[in-house]
Amino acid sequence: MSAATGTVPGTGDLGPAATMRASVLRGPGDVAVEERAVPQPGPGEVVVRVSSVGVCGSDTHYYDHGRIGRFVVESPLVLGHEAAGEVAALGPGVATLSVGQRVSVEPGVPDLTCPQCLAGRYNLCPGMRFFATPPIDGAFAEYVVVHAAFAHPVPETISDDAAALLEPLSVGIWACRRGRVGAGSRVLVTGAGPIGLVSVQAALAFGATEVVVSDVNPARLALARDLGATEVVDARTSRVTDLPRPPEVLLECSGHPVATADAIRALDRAGRAVLVGMGGDELALPLSVVQERELEVTGTFRYAGTWPTAIALVAAGRIDLDRLVTGTYRLDQAEDALTAGRRDPRSVKVVVHPQT
Amino acid sequence: MSAATGTVPGTGDLGPAATMRASVLRGPGDVAVEERAVPQPGPGEVVVRVSSVGVCGSDTHYYDHGRIGRFVVESPLVLGHEAAGEVAALGPGVATLSVGQRVSVEPGVPDLTCPQCLAGRYNLCPGMRFFATPPIDGAFAEYVVVHAAFAHPVPETISDDAAALLEPLSVGIWACRRGRVGAGSRVLVTGAGPIGLVSVQAALAFGATEVVVSDVNPARLALARDLGATEVVDARTSRVTDLPRPPEVLLECSGHPVATADAIRALDRAGRAVLVGMGGDELALPLSVVQERELEVTGTFRYAGTWPTAIALVAAGRIDLDRLVTGTYRLDQAEDALTAGRRDPRSVKVVVHPQT
Amino acid sequence: MSAATGTVPGTGDLGPAATMRASVLRGPGDVAVEERAVPQPGPGEVVVRVSSVGVCGSDTHYYDHGRIGRFVVESPLVLGHEAAGEVAALGPGVATLSVGQRVSVEPGVPDLTCPQCLAGRYNLCPGMRFFATPPIDGAFAEYVVVHAAFAHPVPETISDDAAALLEPLSVGIWACRRGRVGAGSRVLVTGAGPIGLVSVQAALAFGATEVVVSDVNPARLALARDLGATEVVDARTSRVTDLPRPPEVLLECSGHPVATADAIRALDRAGRAVLVGMGGDELALPLSVVQERELEVTGTFRYAGTWPTAIALVAAGRIDLDRLVTGTYRLDQAEDALTAGRRDPRSVKVVVHPQT
Amino acid sequence: MSAATGTVPGTGDLGPAATMRASVLRGPGDVAVEERAVPQPGPGEVVVRVSSVGVCGSDTHYYDHGRIGRFVVESPLVLGHEAAGEVAALGPGVATLSVGQRVSVEPGVPDLTCPQCLAGRYNLCPGMRFFATPPIDGAFAEYVVVHAAFAHPVPETISDDAAALLEPLSVGIWACRRGRVGAGSRVLVTGAGPIGLVSVQAALAFGATEVVVSDVNPARLALARDLGATEVVDARTSRVTDLPRPPEVLLECSGHPVATADAIRALDRAGRAVLVGMGGDELALPLSVVQERELEVTGTFRYAGTWPTAIALVAAGRIDLDRLVTGTYRLDQAEDALTAGRRDPRSVKVVVHPQT
Repeated sequence: MSAATGTVPGTGDLGPAATMRASVLRGPGDVAVEERAVPQPGPGEVVVRVSSVGVCGSDTHYYDHGRIGRFVVESPLVLGHEAAGEVAALGPGVATLSVGQRVSVEPGVPDLTCPQCLAGRYNLCPGMRFFATPPIDGAFAEYVVVHAAFAHPVPETISDDAAALLEPLSVGIWACRRGRVGAGSRVLVTGAGPIGLVSVQAALAFGATEVVVSDVNPARLALARDLGATEVVDARTSRVTDLPRPPEVLLECSGHPVATADAIRALDRAGRAVLVGMGGDELALPLSVVQERELEVTGTFRYAGTWPTAIALVAAGRIDLDRLVTGTYRLDQAEDALTAGRRDPRSVKVVVHPQT
Repeated sequence: MSAATGTVPGTGDLGPAATMRASVLRGPGDVAVEERAVPQPGPGEVVVRVSSVGVCGSDTHYYDHGRIGRFVVESPLVLGHEAAGEVAALGPGVATLSVGQRVSVEPGVPDLTCPQCLAGRYNLCPGMRFFATPPIDGAFAEYVVVHAAFAHPVPETISDDAAALLEPLSVGIWACRRGRVGAGSRVLVTGAGPIGLVSVQAALAFGATEVVVSDVNPARLALARDLGATEVVDARTSRVTDLPRPPEVLLECSGHPVATADAIRALDRAGRAVLVGMGGDELALPLSVVQERELEVTGTFRYAGTWPTAIALVAAGRIDLDRLVTGTYRLDQAEDALTAGRRDPRSVKVVVHPQT
Repeated sequence: MSAATGTVPGTGDLGPAATMRASVLRGPGDVAVEERAVPQPGPGEVVVRVSSVGVCGSDTHYYDHGRIGRFVVESPLVLGHEAAGEVAALGPGVATLSVGQRVSVEPGVPDLTCPQCLAGRYNLCPGMRFFATPPIDGAFAEYVVVHAAFAHPVPETISDDAAALLEPLSVGIWACRRGRVGAGSRVLVTGAGPIGLVSVQAALAFGATEVVVSDVNPARLALARDLGATEVVDARTSRVTDLPRPPEVLLECSGHPVATADAIRALDRAGRAVLVGMGGDELALPLSVVQERELEVTGTFRYAGTWPTAIALVAAGRIDLDRLVTGTYRLDQAEDALTAGRRDPRSVKVVVHPQT
Repeated sequence: MSAATGTVPGTGDLGPAATMRASVLRGPGDVAVEERAVPQPGPGEVVVRVSSVGVCGSDTHYYDHGRIGRFVVESPLVLGHEAAGEVAALGPGVATLSVGQRVSVEPGVPDLTCPQCLAGRYNLCPGMRFFATPPIDGAFAEYVVVHAAFAHPVPETISDDAAALLEPLSVGIWACRRGRVGAGSRVLVTGAGPIGLVSVQAALAFGATEVVVSDVNPARLALARDLGATEVVDARTSRVTDLPRPPEVLLECSGHPVATADAIRALDRAGRAVLVGMGGDELALPLSVVQERELEVTGTFRYAGTWPTAIALVAAGRIDLDRLVTGTYRLDQAEDALTAGRRDPRSVKVVVHPQT
């Protein structure tokens, strides 16, 4: 069949017409569904029919402000980078996937050949093309194209929503790796938003036996405890520096500079502070504590090589991602999805189902 | 009080008389209870009133043969190195423990100041003094003396038997560390004896999501599965090289040279083979496989720094050691305890309760 | 200009005719110069005009036997994988190199997207295409094509021959990395052939302060000493197990099974044995030594990410590769080059200059 | 001989009288030589007759201010913690050293049994007793006592002064270890004082091929270059963020908060910033750079296990410590030694010879 009759090059039939609906951010606060051409897979790429996309704080930030730091939305942008679906078509040369296969999409594809990529740190690739980061479109759309190696097959035991949420889980897994969380670790997670909550679950799956969570939102602390946190700290009334046993690893997911500095002060000798949350350009690092206890403070930037681990942990039942989903939206409700968090303090993670 | 009235120097009353019963190996096949002086704690040491001691294959080997390799029983020896109890007396200068505290005994005390010790590898200390290794007496006795830093407090949630079995668990934990088992690891454990079974549990607690176990004993394979193994291989009829997905880590606990070489051949590229079992002086290493897949093969010698992890994992319910106990014996039944394994193929781990 | 007039697609003029001379292995012992088409660069690739190619033992082995293990020369094969030259033409999309730039060729190009590649271990890529490994042609030719990311620019201070020999140096660097050679390390190198000698130099450049070399060839031992070895052992009369201080790291470059086992026995507690040499399918591993000293034995398979290090070390004068060159041959003398080692015991490394 | 006749317990004759001269800090700015009893070695300890002691910035700080942070000089204190000498007497049980042996003194002795010690991180031992840190006396004295395992034998090729300066070298070695400096590393050292200069030499000995040094003192930059720095940056006129190639590792030895933040901004992706200098309680960490480049920032607190490496590197001629010595003083000139730095901008490191 030819492109004119509704297929993309390669293998796989996309249906009666090679157009699709996409939810497009046209400016701050302005999102609308548009008809767009189904993207074409290049060599080594696949088209994925998107079943579920999670809404991330960065999506909401782009929606609200039209930019994140130096990344500015200068032309219409499709948001969404937490996506799952099924393979709809294969580009030339793809032998590792087949049409119909359910996949979770890793939304950043690096150049594969720069020194960072060759060293296995492809998250630091300067040539990275990342979904929903201007000018690269994201997954609030019926179809997306991605490199076959970044469309990770998932077993039936992982739901569509959970497959989409392997992306935020990857952030938590990466944080645990950077912090060398292991069997018997004592971990402090500051901030119980979606990233904090997947970090709690990841830390437990990495073998941590003490996972303390701090936040100011009691509903989220309760959910953290349900997910396995061994202790919660209501940051409105208590301080993590008063914990009876100092944690070894801090997974900082609040992005709050004062909370971050305080949590670093709470660490044990030889402790590791993993900065996940973003919050301002500078952090007042408690230098004498860092020196005397020989702490390590490390940045994190996305993730590399996390999907196999994420899939294995969710498939084995060690981590429950469906539990985090507090709302489901149609594609034409993207605006509601993007603003759900501010409307409902009990909202944790909402997803968009682009086929609906 | 003076020693004449039945106490040891330091703090703590050992009762009306400073003698105790000990089960002594006087020669191959010759074990008997003898009356001995309660050992005296030196500076920094404590006396532990032993509640439970596990029987290890090495104990049985000394009982049968009077030697293990270059270690020869030349004078009467008290066996047993998997011990727990409560602190009965403190030697001079001990401030970290108190009389009555329940502890698990780490049975090897290094010199603390050699280069290996200062590097944190105290298991390789040439000056190590290890329980039940000639000429050092072990724990088949009412009381033992150990350095306070090697008497690890355990919470009430850990039973006496489990506290004793933190020693074999330490072997499994050490194997997992040496093999860098982590979240999502695919692990093969060859041999489902006590060490294999604690290695299975340790691997799961370290986050492994595939743990395949091979053995020739169906009862042990069934127990392995009960303890969480995701797949079992009956080595009488199947080969680990036929596994659908090659494991990343081998924890070799069979000590069988042919099984070991075969299991190494089963490993994935970049795999790690951790040799735990002992079996002969030489191993026919499959060199071309080791080279082409760039495998790492590592020896293991006891453990270092494992007790805190072991305690945390058992206290958190991640590992069940009581499940392994298939028999309990009085001190005067030590001979029965030492030979239980050969009498009953369903026997896994037996313990001696020296106070009974 | 068009291909008909002698250029390859992309940028760069290859001269009056797009044919070249190549030295072709047609069967065991049968090498001859043939006229061949200049290879065409695909997207991301470059053509390199080869200035120097080192002769490796594997080349000689293919010449002698027509195979190495499972790799069989079934059709005419161009040998040579230690190559340097200058960029002659750029394939589509190459922006990181320019025509005329001097480069050292990394002779194995992986698929870049398999799990091993994404983890930074591209040497273990199952899809690796490696020069002079059937059916991939090598560099005994005027021109070769290679992926631009694997054509590493070298400064003027590195000679053509040294640029070619960055390949064997990479083997030595990789061995040092695998063995964690560092400042103050005590290293034993068994075998003082070309790989042993680059390993000596690499170990010194990594900071090793004791580098003992053993071999049976006095000329090579003398050269090892000239290159900085701190002690040499004539293996005909002395044993490495008699060294006064046990080495921490073994870089095994002899491929001799008995020497290997003996050298492993010479290691210190916590020692690392890095197997570089190939020799037979099995190695009689001294198991009790491996266990009691907790040794690590690791295979090596080529290298990954070594060129930047190799270039930096040679450019900084820390390693002298020109010193290893004991003979230079024209392309039509490839047979002499391949057999130089067996004709002259003082031969160390010979190079072919394909433009001559 | 008995103590009454002038020896210390154990082996070794200290001469006609068991008193010695020591330079004592009695208050800020008040140092004087006093007669004191020769210290007695306890079990496992040795007495060292001090030949050379380096003056450290911390000594000068105590001299000037009577305190460093929470460490306050409340009673007379002997300064000096960079010491070498020869063994003068052995305490009970010392078998690893003999009287007359030349040693370098590692000035901090940990408790050896806390979790940090058992993990090989004895520098973080809460029970550490460190020379010249209130209330522990230091080495501005004819004799000191130290645990035998911390009196490291040095070969004849290492001078007394160099043996003393193994202590600051240890700081540089530790910084390189924490920063994972290796073969081919690109390193930036900020601050060319004594610690910066030993860090430069350590980085080169670890295999770094680019070592850039920044400072505001041209004399020190010139010395840095003489010691092997590949490039120097005069911080009065240039910024390290303008370097053509970003460094991978920062060894921050200036203690200047603005310089530190600037140097962190200069790092390459995946870079490591090792904080060695002390300067204030807080550091304004450039958070967005740390996140986007995934930088690691690590504190350092003294060192652990560095003496063997330091001795090996100096004995092998890889590092020249004598070159740093710009002044030599008698014990009664301690005040001049402590203030030499502020009197002469060309002063780098001065030493006191307590036997003179």
